[in-house]
Amino acid sequence: MAGSTLGTIWKITTWGESHGKGIGVVVDGCPAGLALKEADIQEYLNRRKPGQSKFTTKRQEADQVEILSGVFEGKTTGTPISMIVWNTDQRSRDYGNIVEVFRPGHADFTFDAKYGFRDYRGGGRSSGRETIARVAAGAVAASFLKSLGITVTAYTKSVGPYEADPERFCIEERDNNRLYMPDKETAAKAEAYLEEMMANKDSVGGVVECVIDGVPAGIGDPVFEKYDAALAKAVMSIGAVKGFEIGDGFAASRALGSENNDGFIKGTKKAVEKATNHSGGILGGISDGSRVLFRAAFKPTPSIASPQRTVTRQGEETEIEIKGRHDPIVVPRAVVVVEAMAAITTADLLLANMTARMDHIVSFYKRENKTTGKGTEY
Amino acid sequence: MAGSTLGTIWKITTWGESHGKGIGVVVDGCPAGLALKEADIQEYLNRRKPGQSKFTTKRQEADQVEILSGVFEGKTTGTPISMIVWNTDQRSRDYGNIVEVFRPGHADFTFDAKYGFRDYRGGGRSSGRETIARVAAGAVAASFLKSLGITVTAYTKSVGPYEADPERFCIEERDNNRLYMPDKETAAKAEAYLEEMMANKDSVGGVVECVIDGVPAGIGDPVFEKYDAALAKAVMSIGAVKGFEIGDGFAASRALGSENNDGFIKGTKKAVEKATNHSGGILGGISDGSRVLFRAAFKPTPSIASPQRTVTRQGEETEIEIKGRHDPIVVPRAVVVVEAMAAITTADLLLANMTARMDHIVSFYKRENKTTGKGTEY
Amino acid sequence: MAGSTLGTIWKITTWGESHGKGIGVVVDGCPAGLALKEADIQEYLNRRKPGQSKFTTKRQEADQVEILSGVFEGKTTGTPISMIVWNTDQRSRDYGNIVEVFRPGHADFTFDAKYGFRDYRGGGRSSGRETIARVAAGAVAASFLKSLGITVTAYTKSVGPYEADPERFCIEERDNNRLYMPDKETAAKAEAYLEEMMANKDSVGGVVECVIDGVPAGIGDPVFEKYDAALAKAVMSIGAVKGFEIGDGFAASRALGSENNDGFIKGTKKAVEKATNHSGGILGGISDGSRVLFRAAFKPTPSIASPQRTVTRQGEETEIEIKGRHDPIVVPRAVVVVEAMAAITTADLLLANMTARMDHIVSFYKRENKTTGKGTEY
Amino acid sequence: MAGSTLGTIWKITTWGESHGKGIGVVVDGCPAGLALKEADIQEYLNRRKPGQSKFTTKRQEADQVEILSGVFEGKTTGTPISMIVWNTDQRSRDYGNIVEVFRPGHADFTFDAKYGFRDYRGGGRSSGRETIARVAAGAVAASFLKSLGITVTAYTKSVGPYEADPERFCIEERDNNRLYMPDKETAAKAEAYLEEMMANKDSVGGVVECVIDGVPAGIGDPVFEKYDAALAKAVMSIGAVKGFEIGDGFAASRALGSENNDGFIKGTKKAVEKATNHSGGILGGISDGSRVLFRAAFKPTPSIASPQRTVTRQGEETEIEIKGRHDPIVVPRAVVVVEAMAAITTADLLLANMTARMDHIVSFYKRENKTTGKGTEY
Repeated sequence: MAGSTLGTIWKITTWGESHGKGIGVVVDGCPAGLALKEADIQEYLNRRKPGQSKFTTKRQEADQVEILSGVFEGKTTGTPISMIVWNTDQRSRDYGNIVEVFRPGHADFTFDAKYGFRDYRGGGRSSGRETIARVAAGAVAASFLKSLGITVTAYTKSVGPYEADPERFCIEERDNNRLYMPDKETAAKAEAYLEEMMANKDSVGGVVECVIDGVPAGIGDPVFEKYDAALAKAVMSIGAVKGFEIGDGFAASRALGSENNDGFIKGTKKAVEKATNHSGGILGGISDGSRVLFRAAFKPTPSIASPQRTVTRQGEETEIEIKGRHDPIVVPRAVVVVEAMAAITTADLLLANMTARMDHIVSFYKRENKTTGKGTEY
Repeated sequence: MAGSTLGTIWKITTWGESHGKGIGVVVDGCPAGLALKEADIQEYLNRRKPGQSKFTTKRQEADQVEILSGVFEGKTTGTPISMIVWNTDQRSRDYGNIVEVFRPGHADFTFDAKYGFRDYRGGGRSSGRETIARVAAGAVAASFLKSLGITVTAYTKSVGPYEADPERFCIEERDNNRLYMPDKETAAKAEAYLEEMMANKDSVGGVVECVIDGVPAGIGDPVFEKYDAALAKAVMSIGAVKGFEIGDGFAASRALGSENNDGFIKGTKKAVEKATNHSGGILGGISDGSRVLFRAAFKPTPSIASPQRTVTRQGEETEIEIKGRHDPIVVPRAVVVVEAMAAITTADLLLANMTARMDHIVSFYKRENKTTGKGTEY
Repeated sequence: MAGSTLGTIWKITTWGESHGKGIGVVVDGCPAGLALKEADIQEYLNRRKPGQSKFTTKRQEADQVEILSGVFEGKTTGTPISMIVWNTDQRSRDYGNIVEVFRPGHADFTFDAKYGFRDYRGGGRSSGRETIARVAAGAVAASFLKSLGITVTAYTKSVGPYEADPERFCIEERDNNRLYMPDKETAAKAEAYLEEMMANKDSVGGVVECVIDGVPAGIGDPVFEKYDAALAKAVMSIGAVKGFEIGDGFAASRALGSENNDGFIKGTKKAVEKATNHSGGILGGISDGSRVLFRAAFKPTPSIASPQRTVTRQGEETEIEIKGRHDPIVVPRAVVVVEAMAAITTADLLLANMTARMDHIVSFYKRENKTTGKGTEY
Repeated sequence: MAGSTLGTIWKITTWGESHGKGIGVVVDGCPAGLALKEADIQEYLNRRKPGQSKFTTKRQEADQVEILSGVFEGKTTGTPISMIVWNTDQRSRDYGNIVEVFRPGHADFTFDAKYGFRDYRGGGRSSGRETIARVAAGAVAASFLKSLGITVTAYTKSVGPYEADPERFCIEERDNNRLYMPDKETAAKAEAYLEEMMANKDSVGGVVECVIDGVPAGIGDPVFEKYDAALAKAVMSIGAVKGFEIGDGFAASRALGSENNDGFIKGTKKAVEKATNHSGGILGGISDGSRVLFRAAFKPTPSIASPQRTVTRQGEETEIEIKGRHDPIVVPRAVVVVEAMAAITTADLLLANMTARMDHIVSFYKRENKTTGKGTEY
């Protein structure tokens, strides 16, 4: 099946492999008239770029985005926005035993099982480079959301056992440390832990938390297209994500109803607000007007230099030590990928929601049908 | 947007509200020739039926399923299978302040915000009765999977703070206690805890765990249609679910790569097997041939009898005490709903996977084109 | 594959076979707040009902529709509208040689080839009764369109060689004759022709023409989701349709550019109008604000009483004479089916178009976010 | 809405405008292991290339395709195949009054109405260059079909009033004349007619006919996803197409049932064959094993040099004479576009059909589960 397209109205289609010519994405369904330039996309791509710190791989790939279509005179035209990032580091080399041996924790074996063979030069389609396309598409969605007053912000919540302390939370601090963690003190401890594990030829996992502010009440659909279900799919489709929580998540399973229910109150900014936000901004799959908050759990980087047990394509047992440049933790570079997937999902559901009510539709088309004599109203 | 259809090849469309005429589902894309009868569906529906124990509501609804189409002489015909469960308990009654007041933790407010009004007689489309359609559809999918040697089994993993002990795990015990928990000792403690919370007019959350056995390697697609992403969406779309984990889930975020990677070994039953299963049976979004294992966190039942703070539709602050019959925990009845969603998701991806390889397609159509002279081969 | 769902935002899913319990449809994505009652649907169903004249089958089926969900206190709720028409004429009978013999021009052989067997009691899923679901769904779409000032009107354009004369066109006349032809004189000739062919145990084809008035400019999408392409699929999916034309259709292939191009003029009712309408109201797949006009060619009813050459399921040659009640022409009863498919297609694209422009979206959500203090604005 | 993606399992997504950087397509869902090289695609693109004869525009665009992903060592990998054709003729120039004036028969007005503005440098997304993406994608589908013994062949059936004579039909002749018409004598007359109309500053329409050979019985789904309905949408989505017919098409509407029904006979190559093929190879939306045959009507090229009546964006009446290089007929270059759309549609439905029967699925997965010990079977 075609599994590279996501979304119903705001639809993205990605392509590309780690060792092919490039990575790209087509964003279809972005409305006409959104101001957009390559620098808007590049800003997001720079946040996932390798080579930024000692915790990210040393590969120096420019990862420069090029917009190929869908933008004219600085505005989107309503037609597909095609973007490409060329792979600049394609030099031929010795792939060693990766060709014949399945790397533990990687998709080598499952690709082979599914397709009968694979591009043995690296992760191919399951490489982390695939997320370039997600981030480029996410940057477009984030620009769109910004026009509506909606912002998506993710950060590192934890690195291994080191969790950012809500008491010390400071979003500005996020961009000051190499772990994208908004708590300076914990970040320092986590860095020390990471260095120790790197020295041990080992790798570490972590948690990304994401908040979406400014979402109006009413986004999401009641049954299968619940806002949180759509976020879960989008986020779980990022490689290495093993868990997803909305609001209190698993902690809610240990809470009492009297603790977990959020009472409604007369709002100051809106007619109706909530006294607390255990729900994470979504009730019955539909946004309730408060902050949307979710978390994603990332497993440790599967590529580690210490010896691991595995088998060859012929089924013979062997050992593998994975050489080369690999991040000891994927979380810091994944922060922007999580933001991207959240933005894409939110954009799609925001558009879908415009068709939910008869009164809105009637007033939309009444305005549309007006004969004003102006060029663009017919 | 239409949010009541799920799936690409194996597609389900559900309809119905808690206080309408009935609840139903159309299963489209189920292959022709599967043996299916109403009793197969009823067996699943009986597992979610209310009134089974003191922890489930006292409403006596028969919840008898009727197959309306798609089955002829005991076999599916390849055309849509329409199923209905009539609502028998539709008596008119006093809905009290629910009409004008938003129940905390419910979708009352968000429906009103989205649609401009709602069916105030109950949860409407966001009621727990909506899961009847999921379970009926899931029973068809489970029958299909069984024909291929695949089984889906869910159970209560935890009730509030009481978690089943893997050491005492006994799947037969699941059906012996009212909590569907496969650990007799913990179940007894959890029941006592539940009774205490009920007495306090409070409610409790919990976790459902689900295993899928017999899935061949290769199921799922590499990018957005990852098997675990599809499971996450399907399961998170069940009302009250707040979190999803595949394999080690959030615990993987605290593990090291050397601990979390599953080494490959020469298999006894298959050419390649894994020494451990931290991945939960999925690598890179594609099944690896080992057991698929995931968990879903359920929040406490939002309907509680103790007074809660809320506002009216007019935005005036007030208090609400929710009367009537409500399960103090949704988990036991949700076990079969989780199984259903897992079965539906797996069926869809299994069908999709048949088109992944050229060699398989060529051999399929070569066989298909054979002129055998027999009635059904052309 | 699941082939019983149509549409992206306004989505319909149909089910049911000719000799099963009933025929039904789920309309998902209809906005909340549309006034709708069973009588609105019934009016459309009555137009396709058998037994209305000597040219329609004598089967007396009430074809009474029942709305099962999605409507509360006379208005749609935004959730799926499930409708059912029970099959009342299910008496067991002798199906004769239909069981083992493939009827020419029917789908007996192709169903058998595809599914390995079929419901031999009649057409099953490929029966004309399947269109009941389309008409019920179409009636909902037509109600929706009417609220926006859009009307869909189809009629019989020709019966065999007898074509309605545009000079004598009178839409009121359509409902005065049994052929639904808006030209009294040609209708009389066509009736005589039909009676002659019936006496010969033969059947006749014809053409349905359909006009959609009031469609604003801008509906449809530029590439694959062109308005005319979507109409073509919807209409060609009606059994017995063999051709589709928009505007001048095949005649345009014989015209010159100078004849076929429609010049633009300063409008009286709109800023921009067209001097002629060879395009049928659509340019580049997008509505141009003028009347949408298309035609569908129907083949003669395949069930005829004269002997026909065929083979058995075992591949043995034989002859078949099809007994029983069959319309000698499908066109008159198909008129409302064509209207239905046009309405469904137009509704879906109208909703999709609401998301095409940034300025519209921004003004939509600015209004949505207003804090008015009124109950239904949040 | 996103309207640039087509297909369910075999899915294509196109992008690009006439005066942008390039035109491209992503083919997702093509199975792994298909031999594919750029030359296979280029061969198809060359057939639509401008500058081939005096009836095609003089623009010299190389239209060289580049495969960016999804192919490794000469075989498809099962991941998306991204292809690009760079626009080489992007020189800045004077767009004259096209910027402010709506060209009759073009999508200028409707784009403006839909999106509020447009890329005024040319057709943008509605340009004929958009079909480059369709042809590239179609070449992949055609390669796939060829592996299964299925061939798609289109040709010019008529040019204005000149229709190829079936008696003189010779497919080899198609590639010998500039009109792609498989009848030398009629082609010569049609060429003379075309030259006359060009001299008159006018343009001409025509009909493309397409045959698909080797399609097994059983392709297509009974209701909305009928094979002919899917072909109709795909073909009607090509710019300038105004009509579609399957088999006898509109002629069937004038035929009698006794003439139009195709009797079944004991086959020589297959168990069951048809004595005639009025149905065009499809019954009830499902292929019947005989040749699939359809036609598409193309309107005359809308760009003509003679003066035409129109209005400006401000609604003022004016005249326009369209300068520059324009084909006087689109049909010859559209032949390969029709083939492409037919191939893409057929590929998608062929894959979908693999999941229709339980017996096939069981035998597929039984084979899949075999433990052979060989590298690629798990």
